[in-house]
Amino acid sequence: MNINRLISEIKKKKSCLCIGLDSDESKIPTHLLSEEDPVFSFNKAIIDSTYEYCVAYKPNTAFYEARGLQGWKSLERTIDYLNTKYPNHFTIADAKRGDIGNTSHQYAKAFFEQLNFDSVTVAPYMGNDSVEPFLEYENKFVILLALTSNKGAFDFQTLNCSNEKLYERVLRTAVNWKNNQRLMFVTGATKAEYLKHIRTLIPNHFLLVPGVGAQGGSLSEVMTNGMNTNVGLLINSSREIIYANSTHAFSEAAREKAANVVREMAQFIQ
Amino acid sequence: MNINRLISEIKKKKSCLCIGLDSDESKIPTHLLSEEDPVFSFNKAIIDSTYEYCVAYKPNTAFYEARGLQGWKSLERTIDYLNTKYPNHFTIADAKRGDIGNTSHQYAKAFFEQLNFDSVTVAPYMGNDSVEPFLEYENKFVILLALTSNKGAFDFQTLNCSNEKLYERVLRTAVNWKNNQRLMFVTGATKAEYLKHIRTLIPNHFLLVPGVGAQGGSLSEVMTNGMNTNVGLLINSSREIIYANSTHAFSEAAREKAANVVREMAQFIQ
Repeated sequence: MNINRLISEIKKKKSCLCIGLDSDESKIPTHLLSEEDPVFSFNKAIIDSTYEYCVAYKPNTAFYEARGLQGWKSLERTIDYLNTKYPNHFTIADAKRGDIGNTSHQYAKAFFEQLNFDSVTVAPYMGNDSVEPFLEYENKFVILLALTSNKGAFDFQTLNCSNEKLYERVLRTAVNWKNNQRLMFVTGATKAEYLKHIRTLIPNHFLLVPGVGAQGGSLSEVMTNGMNTNVGLLINSSREIIYANSTHAFSEAAREKAANVVREMAQFIQ
Repeated sequence: MNINRLISEIKKKKSCLCIGLDSDESKIPTHLLSEEDPVFSFNKAIIDSTYEYCVAYKPNTAFYEARGLQGWKSLERTIDYLNTKYPNHFTIADAKRGDIGNTSHQYAKAFFEQLNFDSVTVAPYMGNDSVEPFLEYENKFVILLALTSNKGAFDFQTLNCSNEKLYERVLRTAVNWKNNQRLMFVTGATKAEYLKHIRTLIPNHFLLVPGVGAQGGSLSEVMTNGMNTNVGLLINSSREIIYANSTHAFSEAAREKAANVVREMAQFIQ
């Protein structure tokens, strides 16, 4: 997807909501379990009832891989459905991949060609040549982990490395890589006070912000501290929205949750 | 697999060779392409002709994911074949995963339950709670990236962080995590001179050493600098062995390459 289309969708909908499809067979409404592909049926219903409110969908690959071949099939169906029916929605494979160049080429092929996602999350630990193969694809994006939303983020990401924290070094280094205009960064909402500072380091790039909702991050703090002139944010909510209700009314409940989040977001987006 | 079985296999065979099954459909002998599952046929032939020489097999998931559902099926068949026919070989899913705890649980399920690998490679960037879920499985192992074999390793892994390099901090921190006896570490052969130092930090843990062969690392340097009393090494070779020859004689050529490597290894193993 062209980045301008994403920006225009955000401004039109006054929403930067990304819905995380962490769809776990053991958590979806039980009446769906008799369907041929319960997880896809769940995703389809969630997507059809929330698409007006969000600008992006983010399946987390772990939840699909945990079910083996059947899971991979549900993932394929989900991305095909999104690309066919909602081509203006930005799609994120939350896969947190990254390997030596030769191998990252294969991952890029998996997520950008085989599955045709608009973007994939990538871990920075292995450096430039582990990320570059993903950045070669026009109109595709790498969302690089910088400062994540979990407790373990403080183990290494916030270490002082030659007068700056590791995540700051990751940000400063990566924005000089070839095709860096195709980079976005993961910066967790549970550390919203860091976002203002992050914006001084990378004023222009999009930030994918997980951790609002179930993980405890504040939406208004993220919007206040993280926005740039293009909005420049994708704020993710997964469990809070998709598991809002486990009855036959699950998709309406998800829609209502999404609408509530977007009502709050809209106050910040001109 | 119990760690003692791995150690005893290594001593019995005088080999710590791990063969990387980076099996790429575009690189396998063309006469296999008419088979129902060419990649599995290739893997099966490579395994059947090399099992006497190596103690571990390491499919890299990227090469399978790049082929979508068909690829995942080849991966399933490969691990099932290994577990059924060669249960004394240690199996590694080279997947380089890692996510927030809730999600890492799903990846652990994917690789330790769905696919039943003995171990999985994990990236350390997200810290303790991204790795712990994998460490909960008895007789399963996490192989944590420390110092990788690629050029990009120098972007972040060797940064000075409070008087030590980042990879040293990763090693020192991780060996204090709960169930750390189930940890092994990736330390690249292209930086063999680091191995002696790494052994002062982590004398007891197993090291998975990629980069010998196609990537240029020296086997004798790795053996000299990296061994401990249990040998404590798994030295990986992928392309050099599996693509030794692209004719009908590919598996014999792979066998010969593996035998040559092990002949050199045996000189170091008592």
